Amino acid sequence: MDMNACIEACLDCHRTCLATIAHCLGRGGHHAEAAHIGIMMDCAQICAVSADFMIRQSPHHPHLCAECAEICGQCAASCENHPDADDAMRRCAEACRRCASLCGQMGVRPH
Amino acid sequence: MDMNACIEACLDCHRTCLATIAHCLGRGGHHAEAAHIGIMMDCAQICAVSADFMIRQSPHHPHLCAECAEICGQCAASCENHPDADDAMRRCAEACRRCASLCGQMGVRPH
Amino acid sequence: MDMNACIEACLDCHRTCLATIAHCLGRGGHHAEAAHIGIMMDCAQICAVSADFMIRQSPHHPHLCAECAEICGQCAASCENHPDADDAMRRCAEACRRCASLCGQMGVRPH
Amino acid sequence: MDMNACIEACLDCHRTCLATIAHCLGRGGHHAEAAHIGIMMDCAQICAVSADFMIRQSPHHPHLCAECAEICGQCAASCENHPDADDAMRRCAEACRRCASLCGQMGVRPH
Repeated sequence: MDMNACIEACLDCHRTCLATIAHCLGRGGHHAEAAHIGIMMDCAQICAVSADFMIRQSPHHPHLCAECAEICGQCAASCENHPDADDAMRRCAEACRRCASLCGQMGVRPH
Repeated sequence: MDMNACIEACLDCHRTCLATIAHCLGRGGHHAEAAHIGIMMDCAQICAVSADFMIRQSPHHPHLCAECAEICGQCAASCENHPDADDAMRRCAEACRRCASLCGQMGVRPH
Repeated sequence: MDMNACIEACLDCHRTCLATIAHCLGRGGHHAEAAHIGIMMDCAQICAVSADFMIRQSPHHPHLCAECAEICGQCAASCENHPDADDAMRRCAEACRRCASLCGQMGVRPH
Repeated sequence: MDMNACIEACLDCHRTCLATIAHCLGRGGHHAEAAHIGIMMDCAQICAVSADFMIRQSPHHPHLCAECAEICGQCAASCENHPDADDAMRRCAEACRRCASLCGQMGVRPH
């Protein structure tokens, strides 16, 4: 049940980040800054991978979920704190926060 | 609107195929036959890629959707025609049929 | 033998496109234009996928190779024709041309 | 330099694992056991992702490399310790060991 919600949050966050990359590249200027696009590319990819590990019920999903939660948190901050944050970026931050929260619950940090 | 439904069908089919691969490997025997697992691996991957091309609004999405529709149709057949098809495989065939139909509408064959 | 060379060209082109995206985002301005980054994202992804289909010896690899050849050709043109093409972009165009050529030989257009 | 060698080891390990999955599914029986195929699927995917994070020079690559090293080590063990390990599986174990070693040097565990 919890894993199901987490898989859905990951797939939604993957999709939102990928769409927001296209949106920000289209706006150009500092919306297209390397660090901002870069964290969204990282976030889109780690979300897809974490979802896949959970879908396969891999025993390695807890480490990936923990890393996903961390990257989602940074992606949300990059969208929220952007000086020209628009609606698309605020929606992206929301999807990232939701995914960070659910992946944080599924996640276990390696030690 | 149509593209949105197609993206959702692709992400759902990706997820269902990946879960059904794990299910069929767990059952073993002819559920784990190379050709059956192979078409589900192809289907899971082309669905994720077609979704990404649509999400990015890439001008190349129509060719990928056409290929996705073809592979989804073969994956549905592999699940439906399996001599020991169970509920998981029938649900996989349904997700594939739905994705094949929507991708077929978005798709354009190269010429 | 031929397929081996094609897999290597795809993996090399995937890597070069991904590195050139980071390079162009870092340079900014019209290096970071949506259409230019977009075709490199499409190319990086289709190359990885075509490689995977060949590595798995999927019967569907010829259609994917044909699409890969087309996208690689457009990505090479986007890099070559860029008004401020630099060494990184010329190397990217070279990797794309090589991959387009080898995938074109492996590829079969759907009909 | 070191990162370059690590990227190459990841791409090689991705490719070898994917090919060995197809090989083991083709042999069937306990070569196709869920846990053995599953760890190779995890390994193929984490290797591709770690390579991508390094190619993009993402600041998050050290955590992914650390996780990659761990999964590669387990995949090598699954191939080496298999009661009917053949040449393809031994080559897979070698590629995994090499990738585990290089990713272990690039990797930093989260704390």
